[in-house]
Amino acid sequence: MNDCQATTMKDIAEKFGVSVSTVSRALNGSTRVRKDKRDAICEYAKQHDFYPNNIAKSLRNSKREPIKLIGVIVPEFTHYYFSSVLTGIEEAAAARGYRIIITMSKESYEREVQICQMFEAHQVCGVIVSQAKETMQYDHFKLLQNKGIALVFFDRICTGINASLVVVDDYMGAFKAVTHLIETGCKRIAFYGMKGRAEIGKNRYNGYRDALLKAGITPDDNLIIACDNREDAEKLTPEMLERNDRPDGFFCVNDDTAIGVMYTAKRMGFNIPDDISVCGFTNGNRAVACDPMLTTVEQRGVEVGKEAATILMDQVERLTDPDKIEKRVVRTRLVVRGSSR
Amino acid sequence: MNDCQATTMKDIAEKFGVSVSTVSRALNGSTRVRKDKRDAICEYAKQHDFYPNNIAKSLRNSKREPIKLIGVIVPEFTHYYFSSVLTGIEEAAAARGYRIIITMSKESYEREVQICQMFEAHQVCGVIVSQAKETMQYDHFKLLQNKGIALVFFDRICTGINASLVVVDDYMGAFKAVTHLIETGCKRIAFYGMKGRAEIGKNRYNGYRDALLKAGITPDDNLIIACDNREDAEKLTPEMLERNDRPDGFFCVNDDTAIGVMYTAKRMGFNIPDDISVCGFTNGNRAVACDPMLTTVEQRGVEVGKEAATILMDQVERLTDPDKIEKRVVRTRLVVRGSSR
Repeated sequence: MNDCQATTMKDIAEKFGVSVSTVSRALNGSTRVRKDKRDAICEYAKQHDFYPNNIAKSLRNSKREPIKLIGVIVPEFTHYYFSSVLTGIEEAAAARGYRIIITMSKESYEREVQICQMFEAHQVCGVIVSQAKETMQYDHFKLLQNKGIALVFFDRICTGINASLVVVDDYMGAFKAVTHLIETGCKRIAFYGMKGRAEIGKNRYNGYRDALLKAGITPDDNLIIACDNREDAEKLTPEMLERNDRPDGFFCVNDDTAIGVMYTAKRMGFNIPDDISVCGFTNGNRAVACDPMLTTVEQRGVEVGKEAATILMDQVERLTDPDKIEKRVVRTRLVVRGSSR
Repeated sequence: MNDCQATTMKDIAEKFGVSVSTVSRALNGSTRVRKDKRDAICEYAKQHDFYPNNIAKSLRNSKREPIKLIGVIVPEFTHYYFSSVLTGIEEAAAARGYRIIITMSKESYEREVQICQMFEAHQVCGVIVSQAKETMQYDHFKLLQNKGIALVFFDRICTGINASLVVVDDYMGAFKAVTHLIETGCKRIAFYGMKGRAEIGKNRYNGYRDALLKAGITPDDNLIIACDNREDAEKLTPEMLERNDRPDGFFCVNDDTAIGVMYTAKRMGFNIPDDISVCGFTNGNRAVACDPMLTTVEQRGVEVGKEAATILMDQVERLTDPDKIEKRVVRTRLVVRGSSR
């Protein structure tokens, strides 16, 4: 036998003059094969580097059922939103007997490509992705689709490819939050928004703007700044609050930024929420750690994960037309706490 | 051919009167095989449900190198500590060309067993686990070891099995924290400790007790209670603080509990840290969201993950004796912030 050629069950069967089924039984430890023969077969298989392919086996054993393994790619783990999406995916998958492989792209295009190759090698039936910031080419995703692997995007959706997706209703989330600030007395509301990441930032900005317009307030460019983390919020907020026409409300695109605003305002002697109202976006575990607790828009990551997994499993099981592109929007929820009046 | 019997490359080779190498080339799309023959072979393979085993193939292609896939089991994802351990594992693994499959047991023994079976089917080279609270039997772990799969525990270590492990130095973490509270003027320090989970809780309690004893303070049983979450902390703290001999310092086994104590004490009119000092354990993202920011013991999850992955990869690559049990202790670090004097 050629050195590079793998030993097959058939080779082993021939060697021992038994059927392939007998080899299979022996390797599975079945007592239907005599112990001495079983031991001899196992020993031979071991010596000849015979690896039974369990995955292919499970595929064959249940020909009608697709292999129940879902690959997941997230940019990072230590982010409350992503870990809640993972929890949702896991719960929905487990309920239907699927297992998941979770990987992290660390925002790297190269890693994302490698992960997709691994997923293909592991014969996943579908992949759920929130793509890396770096990713501008989509061939690795298209390749998966061409191989018949279902593909669903969430949160950071990929506009360069035709695939199902789940997004959070950022526009309505922002609209409801800003409307709440207006209704509770705020007249000058600042917007602290995303740098880069156009799509999400734009939707939240539009929700902010439309809420103001609906209330008859003209948006003021001086109140709109690019600031999406606590460090920057602590740097930029003092100048905002020293102005004569200082804002009396802040809508921030995430909780971290909102907490930075609140912390700075308190240090400057302002009372939250009497002087200034602050609203965030996420509702992670930080939102209840701060004092006062944060009014914020809940992103409902668990729900996003469940929706994404459900679309994927329905496609895999042909419950929906696999060529149909599904687009689902998960509604946000405004959680009012002590940081607003 | 028997229905249950898988088609092999050898079957296909016989059918077409070519060598197995030719079949392999054809299936890989090599132009060294004439197009019409290549197409015919691919079509036949498809019709006969022939799945090339990519994983076993990669194994065979690099006989000396073990398959570079690590399975990881954590109880949950939305927990800052576990997600930081995952980040550490991922970083160390990626640096040495390994990939990871991450799964969540949700504290269920049954799920843990199923995950171990899946890991075996996917031919992982090793498994890193923080076991489920429910798990009291360890056969599923022993089975992995018997199959030659390396096994490393972290955090919640498994005392029923001989395996390498990585733990955080809970004793010294608590000792240093309580010593800091004493040195900054606290005379009566309460201990809010774990319910259940004996091992970790015991080490932190011992650190607390020994720090008191070293400073000549006799531990007072009235100041030691089972309380390890915010809700309970908000319920139990008022009674503590209404006593005449109320504590002037709190050492809590996690940040969540410490934040609950702080929140309650502030609502009761106490000043933190002038009247009462509070110290937590974790240093998650909540620790800087609260106000004042929390003095806490950093658990260094990323470091724990890196150590666990390194021990595992060294065993897989036989850089260390695979039968040697490694026990590594990751040192904690006291982070002093505004909640203590």
